[in-house]
Amino acid sequence: MNVRKLEELLRKVKSEKTTIEEAVAKLKSLPFEDLGFTRIDHHRSLRKGYPEVIWGEGKTSHEILSILKQLKAKGQNILITRVEKKKAEQIQKSFPKCQYYPRSKVLTYLTHPVSSAGKGMILVITAGTTDIPVAEEAAITARFMGNPVETIYDVGVAGIHRLLTERKKLENAHVLVVVAGMEGALPSVVGGLVDRPVIAVPTSVGYGTSFGGVTALLAMLNSCASGVAVVNIDNGFGAGYLASLINKK
Amino acid sequence: MNVRKLEELLRKVKSEKTTIEEAVAKLKSLPFEDLGFTRIDHHRSLRKGYPEVIWGEGKTSHEILSILKQLKAKGQNILITRVEKKKAEQIQKSFPKCQYYPRSKVLTYLTHPVSSAGKGMILVITAGTTDIPVAEEAAITARFMGNPVETIYDVGVAGIHRLLTERKKLENAHVLVVVAGMEGALPSVVGGLVDRPVIAVPTSVGYGTSFGGVTALLAMLNSCASGVAVVNIDNGFGAGYLASLINKK
Amino acid sequence: MNVRKLEELLRKVKSEKTTIEEAVAKLKSLPFEDLGFTRIDHHRSLRKGYPEVIWGEGKTSHEILSILKQLKAKGQNILITRVEKKKAEQIQKSFPKCQYYPRSKVLTYLTHPVSSAGKGMILVITAGTTDIPVAEEAAITARFMGNPVETIYDVGVAGIHRLLTERKKLENAHVLVVVAGMEGALPSVVGGLVDRPVIAVPTSVGYGTSFGGVTALLAMLNSCASGVAVVNIDNGFGAGYLASLINKK
Amino acid sequence: MNVRKLEELLRKVKSEKTTIEEAVAKLKSLPFEDLGFTRIDHHRSLRKGYPEVIWGEGKTSHEILSILKQLKAKGQNILITRVEKKKAEQIQKSFPKCQYYPRSKVLTYLTHPVSSAGKGMILVITAGTTDIPVAEEAAITARFMGNPVETIYDVGVAGIHRLLTERKKLENAHVLVVVAGMEGALPSVVGGLVDRPVIAVPTSVGYGTSFGGVTALLAMLNSCASGVAVVNIDNGFGAGYLASLINKK
Amino acid sequence: MNVRKLEELLRKVKSEKTTIEEAVAKLKSLPFEDLGFTRIDHHRSLRKGYPEVIWGEGKTSHEILSILKQLKAKGQNILITRVEKKKAEQIQKSFPKCQYYPRSKVLTYLTHPVSSAGKGMILVITAGTTDIPVAEEAAITARFMGNPVETIYDVGVAGIHRLLTERKKLENAHVLVVVAGMEGALPSVVGGLVDRPVIAVPTSVGYGTSFGGVTALLAMLNSCASGVAVVNIDNGFGAGYLASLINKK
Amino acid sequence: MNVRKLEELLRKVKSEKTTIEEAVAKLKSLPFEDLGFTRIDHHRSLRKGYPEVIWGEGKTSHEILSILKQLKAKGQNILITRVEKKKAEQIQKSFPKCQYYPRSKVLTYLTHPVSSAGKGMILVITAGTTDIPVAEEAAITARFMGNPVETIYDVGVAGIHRLLTERKKLENAHVLVVVAGMEGALPSVVGGLVDRPVIAVPTSVGYGTSFGGVTALLAMLNSCASGVAVVNIDNGFGAGYLASLINKK
Amino acid sequence: MNVRKLEELLRKVKSEKTTIEEAVAKLKSLPFEDLGFTRIDHHRSLRKGYPEVIWGEGKTSHEILSILKQLKAKGQNILITRVEKKKAEQIQKSFPKCQYYPRSKVLTYLTHPVSSAGKGMILVITAGTTDIPVAEEAAITARFMGNPVETIYDVGVAGIHRLLTERKKLENAHVLVVVAGMEGALPSVVGGLVDRPVIAVPTSVGYGTSFGGVTALLAMLNSCASGVAVVNIDNGFGAGYLASLINKK
Amino acid sequence: MNVRKLEELLRKVKSEKTTIEEAVAKLKSLPFEDLGFTRIDHHRSLRKGYPEVIWGEGKTSHEILSILKQLKAKGQNILITRVEKKKAEQIQKSFPKCQYYPRSKVLTYLTHPVSSAGKGMILVITAGTTDIPVAEEAAITARFMGNPVETIYDVGVAGIHRLLTERKKLENAHVLVVVAGMEGALPSVVGGLVDRPVIAVPTSVGYGTSFGGVTALLAMLNSCASGVAVVNIDNGFGAGYLASLINKK
Repeated sequence: MNVRKLEELLRKVKSEKTTIEEAVAKLKSLPFEDLGFTRIDHHRSLRKGYPEVIWGEGKTSHEILSILKQLKAKGQNILITRVEKKKAEQIQKSFPKCQYYPRSKVLTYLTHPVSSAGKGMILVITAGTTDIPVAEEAAITARFMGNPVETIYDVGVAGIHRLLTERKKLENAHVLVVVAGMEGALPSVVGGLVDRPVIAVPTSVGYGTSFGGVTALLAMLNSCASGVAVVNIDNGFGAGYLASLINKK
Repeated sequence: MNVRKLEELLRKVKSEKTTIEEAVAKLKSLPFEDLGFTRIDHHRSLRKGYPEVIWGEGKTSHEILSILKQLKAKGQNILITRVEKKKAEQIQKSFPKCQYYPRSKVLTYLTHPVSSAGKGMILVITAGTTDIPVAEEAAITARFMGNPVETIYDVGVAGIHRLLTERKKLENAHVLVVVAGMEGALPSVVGGLVDRPVIAVPTSVGYGTSFGGVTALLAMLNSCASGVAVVNIDNGFGAGYLASLINKK
Repeated sequence: MNVRKLEELLRKVKSEKTTIEEAVAKLKSLPFEDLGFTRIDHHRSLRKGYPEVIWGEGKTSHEILSILKQLKAKGQNILITRVEKKKAEQIQKSFPKCQYYPRSKVLTYLTHPVSSAGKGMILVITAGTTDIPVAEEAAITARFMGNPVETIYDVGVAGIHRLLTERKKLENAHVLVVVAGMEGALPSVVGGLVDRPVIAVPTSVGYGTSFGGVTALLAMLNSCASGVAVVNIDNGFGAGYLASLINKK
Repeated sequence: MNVRKLEELLRKVKSEKTTIEEAVAKLKSLPFEDLGFTRIDHHRSLRKGYPEVIWGEGKTSHEILSILKQLKAKGQNILITRVEKKKAEQIQKSFPKCQYYPRSKVLTYLTHPVSSAGKGMILVITAGTTDIPVAEEAAITARFMGNPVETIYDVGVAGIHRLLTERKKLENAHVLVVVAGMEGALPSVVGGLVDRPVIAVPTSVGYGTSFGGVTALLAMLNSCASGVAVVNIDNGFGAGYLASLINKK
Repeated sequence: MNVRKLEELLRKVKSEKTTIEEAVAKLKSLPFEDLGFTRIDHHRSLRKGYPEVIWGEGKTSHEILSILKQLKAKGQNILITRVEKKKAEQIQKSFPKCQYYPRSKVLTYLTHPVSSAGKGMILVITAGTTDIPVAEEAAITARFMGNPVETIYDVGVAGIHRLLTERKKLENAHVLVVVAGMEGALPSVVGGLVDRPVIAVPTSVGYGTSFGGVTALLAMLNSCASGVAVVNIDNGFGAGYLASLINKK
Repeated sequence: MNVRKLEELLRKVKSEKTTIEEAVAKLKSLPFEDLGFTRIDHHRSLRKGYPEVIWGEGKTSHEILSILKQLKAKGQNILITRVEKKKAEQIQKSFPKCQYYPRSKVLTYLTHPVSSAGKGMILVITAGTTDIPVAEEAAITARFMGNPVETIYDVGVAGIHRLLTERKKLENAHVLVVVAGMEGALPSVVGGLVDRPVIAVPTSVGYGTSFGGVTALLAMLNSCASGVAVVNIDNGFGAGYLASLINKK
Repeated sequence: MNVRKLEELLRKVKSEKTTIEEAVAKLKSLPFEDLGFTRIDHHRSLRKGYPEVIWGEGKTSHEILSILKQLKAKGQNILITRVEKKKAEQIQKSFPKCQYYPRSKVLTYLTHPVSSAGKGMILVITAGTTDIPVAEEAAITARFMGNPVETIYDVGVAGIHRLLTERKKLENAHVLVVVAGMEGALPSVVGGLVDRPVIAVPTSVGYGTSFGGVTALLAMLNSCASGVAVVNIDNGFGAGYLASLINKK
Repeated sequence: MNVRKLEELLRKVKSEKTTIEEAVAKLKSLPFEDLGFTRIDHHRSLRKGYPEVIWGEGKTSHEILSILKQLKAKGQNILITRVEKKKAEQIQKSFPKCQYYPRSKVLTYLTHPVSSAGKGMILVITAGTTDIPVAEEAAITARFMGNPVETIYDVGVAGIHRLLTERKKLENAHVLVVVAGMEGALPSVVGGLVDRPVIAVPTSVGYGTSFGGVTALLAMLNSCASGVAVVNIDNGFGAGYLASLINKK
């Protein structure tokens, strides 16, 4: 039941063509999809201008292009994750202003500048250099959502002094994203040094019993430091997104 | 917004104390919980007289008694699963008409006779004698929901002729619930003999690599017979409930 | 006991060399391998005209073609699952009337029109767009077996209102097939909204700890909604087949 | 087709109301459940005098006693596995001739002497002393089935010379049952020394990553020696039974 | 090297008893434990007055009492998790002002009132009633750390309208803790309805393939909703602590 | 110490250049590697003419050729498992008399006819057609070791009558190898029909929760039939080898 | 063949009753069990005076006492692991000089003083206080085998400065045993700070996804620090024993 | 704060431009990264000349070349693991003196001769020939770090006499690295024969339930021999490195 129909009904009440009882009955049976979620829809419309995020894996460049065109028409900023280089190049032919990050396979398209949205700095840390692609996905996501982002890479726990020399950055961060594969110990150490929320991201880096990141994930879930929560393996986007929600002004 | 408030609003429209625009705005922002789910609620009220099911595990006999009293007042039939014998005895002191089934630890209370609800016969089969408690939970649930139920117990695949001599019962069944632990092979054999839906229930019967029913569960999910679906380990109630839904007139 | 021996026995009855009692006793002890499965065969012959289903994976196009020819000669409708596009194209050269569905990799061949066999509508629902191939396999199977099928795609639980706006379709369905990867939560939500059997199909969609569909499978087995049963990961065919059995007139 | 119908048919043959050909055709389609399994039953009756085996776990002493009485009446030897000491003592009150083996929790009852049934000697070997209860279950089972049995206990691979000094026994064995927990390496070593079938039995002995015998089981399945097969964890009975089948004259 | 020694060294520099080179050398080799972590120590001392948290499991009431005495002397508020009822009662004899929460087994002791520390409201939600103990641990922790906390219990996804009627509370929350066992679907649904960080807590509620909470955990890690992170199974304290860090003014 | 040195020592004893005591001392300290395993070596030499088995996977055709040449020179029959077609073709260029079995990827080379070695018939059974490659590996191995082998293929438990019509073959077998993927139920059914040893071979046939054969393996280990033992997934060779040991005259 | 028989043979050679060829043939077939392992036995006798270690779990106090008596008679020092307090008290009645360590459940009995056997100091470190029982088992074992042992307890990675302040001890250690549960990160940090072998011991400390120590074990196996090896969960004895072997003069 | 700034501060103290109190305050807040880790840095500089190890997997030949250039400039010996053949050839174009080991995919570059660093011989043993690549990685690493290394290949437990004939080498070893796939039993047997530390390396050799080395790993962790510790699957480098630490003079 759309607004026009609703007005019609009320007019009938007003003109006494419909009794109040009849109107109540009709209104009570209004499907919620027409009225009930109005506020949710409204709420969503308020969020317009927010970045849209697309999961690129398994989508053809053709499909991505058609989504891009629709969203561009609505004036939205767009972030696409897991875009293979070849696809990215095909997309950039039609959308030359697209920014592509080959390490993290993220592709962004800005219809308008990103506005500042964060209360503080989001710090993205990795244990090793092989964790950087996942970290970069987190960092790009957080920047794309309007946050200042800093990074510290390759400060794994087997050389703990490398991390300790960055203590100031650690203390300045408002939210921390800690990315690690192998034994996944870095979030525990970081969580013990700071007083801010730590989002741990296990990566599939490793071999043998790293089980594609499961070992790192389990270690992070069992962190002896309080204030640490975990997202799925290699889910840099999810960490960057959650960090942005936490950091939202 | 309840009916009274709605009538009041419509009266204001009728008496022109409120413009149609104002009324539309108000109605659009009606929380769906007041209007939107009316139909769902109505739908639920239609279901009155339906049995209520309570998960008894972890509830004290005191808590169960207080639920029983409420539901009895509403005139509902009640089925409670996983009630330890001691609890059952305490409950029966207050509700002597309660029926308790010690093997399956089910307790039922009828405020009115169960009315016949099924299109055909539901057949509950077990591989071994130790699977009977789970099977009985399924059978009692299905009977409680108004279905004729028959059973064939202890016809596991290591003595396949025992099953084959029951072919007539198999063919007469409208829905089959097949309960098995250990290697969980029975649903595949049954599924190959009949043309009706088979609900497979793995049980935690076994030792060593039976892994508390996981082996049976996996075997059932990989059934080479079509027409087999699986519920959780030891979930006799769930199988009986689903069989009843399938068998509903 | 072969036919010759049987004839001999009957001749003795006829010529009164053997009493009827003796003959009954002898016949009762006939080994089932010689006689016993006739009725099953007969029963199977009654089912002629039923669709035949072939598992295409691992079979060459040559092998599939030879099966197709045999079944076509018997006048049967044929459904082949998991046929790669290349194989399908080779098959279509010989059987140009074959219908191929590239998303679900199903190939069907009709020797006669599908006759209506279902009591109600089968509704196939997916959580995401990447679940559609599996859902399509279910839908094609159910249609091939004579059922009216409707679909609702991409109504995952992270945007629950998308599902709720389809409440009418949900309530009209006689059987529901719910296909989901990742956290596999959709069957629980659907199972809570309807009063009909729900067949849950986990898909291998996801990454990291989705473990190729195991997470979705486990979530579905642990559904807090009653009336849900589960088939193997990506087993769209199995769900469509079971839904058809449940929906059979 | 019941007996009455069968008699009627034969009478028609006798009175020539039905031709022999027609009767043969009808008889061939007799459902096997009425006639077909006679031979299997007969076959089973031939096996009378064979030991009966009962899984004692989960059965009350009362239930076991009633089974014992039935089987004793049939003149069968009986072996009951997994009988707790208390139950055994209660049973021995009624059946004082019962033999109870407390380490392996096996209870046997002989109505007649065990007759020799084996071609050669069955050798039961354990890696450690804690594996002995499972080994004893295998040894008792094999002896109960008429086989000469020898044992070598506590010859685990960490002291390989202990095993090597028993080479003669190893070479004299016709079938070997090798019982081991922890790393489960013994069957591989034994399998490399002999030319006879080796049945490997993993035990739940160990802690931490022994996972209740799963580690031993996996090691045994991956034995680099040919001629080794594996039974379930702690399944001494199964190993003794299979060894007896292999050793049967 | 403590301050006194440092002053002495500087005095020697001043009085030219030590050359600058010698002093530099000495200062360079200062063990970091004496100087380097001063700031960390200082930082920690700033945190004084912060609540202290003790893991009660595996500690005797005697041990807990001695810790309580020490911390009380320092004027700190204290929260102890996983305290069995009996221990709690023994502790309350010495510390009658202790507050004990039997459902969540949390014990708190306040030496001074909790000061308000949170920016917004923390909302704790459960799927079922059996998840409440874990939820309560989260709620108590968050309140103990100075946050306003509200709760919504028993709004699992099988009755999704129960959650939807609480939409206002959901939208008012600054951080959400969502506690669920079984299929663990609730955080995904909540995460789709709100724009704030969601901390998902799997519980060990369930049976069979719930695997003591692992299924819920996996489902949560694979949430199709963005903005969800996960803590260990039954880790209500961790969720409450992290929510407090996020909510810190 | 080689023979020459031993003769020298004895000669010194004979010529009294060495006392008996000295000689005993020397002989006692002889490293067993020179003397001790003589008997084993002897034993092995007795086995000459026995087939040699080579694991072909991971070996180049060059490496396999050089092994073939050595063994051919010794007059041995040779069986090579897991040889890819390309390798086989290269090998056949040098050894045109090699027999290659493409389905099971086995390659055999006979320097002399296989002599009959078995007491009875070995029966190899498969549940499905996709299990045939593994079954063929077992059958070829058993034939290569001198056994009469028969096969029954595609008699899975979902069409149990197909198996039952082969009861005679089942009863004639001296050892049975039962090969099955998916739910792995066939060995249990076969084990219930026969009185002979059953070697169960799980195959990696299946998808989703078949877990590359683990489900079939677990089902087989938990067989409710006695007399069943299991080898590694896809280990057709191992089953054929063990069956041959059991069947050895 | 014992010495007497050997002398006889040599005498026959000497007296030319046996030819050298005959003697060589006889000597070559000497079973190794009589001669071959002499050296191993001798080697073992050399080790006399070495401590004997007994696994106490599953042994009755009676069995332990009889072992103690035998070993005491041989003058050996004895270490018994996993002795419950009650057993220990019973043993101490007969052997009052026994030393019992209740935290680690180790019982030692010295017949002579432990002689110093180590090259350097063995350092045992724990992450938490609950890891101490396992650490103590390692420490006692190492001391019992003659090594100087120091300990650092409760220096888990969430408070990394606690570990760093112990840098001197770390650098003085010749071998390090690092004991940790939960996320098992400590060995990686320690391994990065020292240049000596690190033996990591996972403990079963934790809950939920700690999986009884498996998470810690996996983390340790995936340590990003070189020079770390791992023993079984809770295997303090094994770590202390291996550390002693490494530290042996 | 670097040295220059420190001297400046001291000069100010000397010249009384800064009070001692002010200087103490400044020094106390010196970030430890400038002073605190001096000793660690110094310590590290002492280690100069030590080999550098690079994980080659995932690095391009370009990246490896740039690292090689830097390290060569510092005069260090370099070992790079997991370098594919193609990369190695590209690197050798620029660094023709690089040594490449194709079986183990190790690449080494020596700027100066390796100096002898080991106390004894390191013995590397494999169970099969397919384990040799991992063993070679261990052997090359240990040689590169200055140790004498010997090897025994292909002495798996199914032919235990092959191992026993090498007893002398076993006894001469100071540290043993034992590499095995499949059932992983070899370290237990070796550990029982020697009195020296055994480092067990599981390999991913095998199929089916070898689970890429997990079975071997578990077997090794559960070794019944004392003195065995385990590194990650296929981690030959780690074993060689740890063996070198143990063997360090």
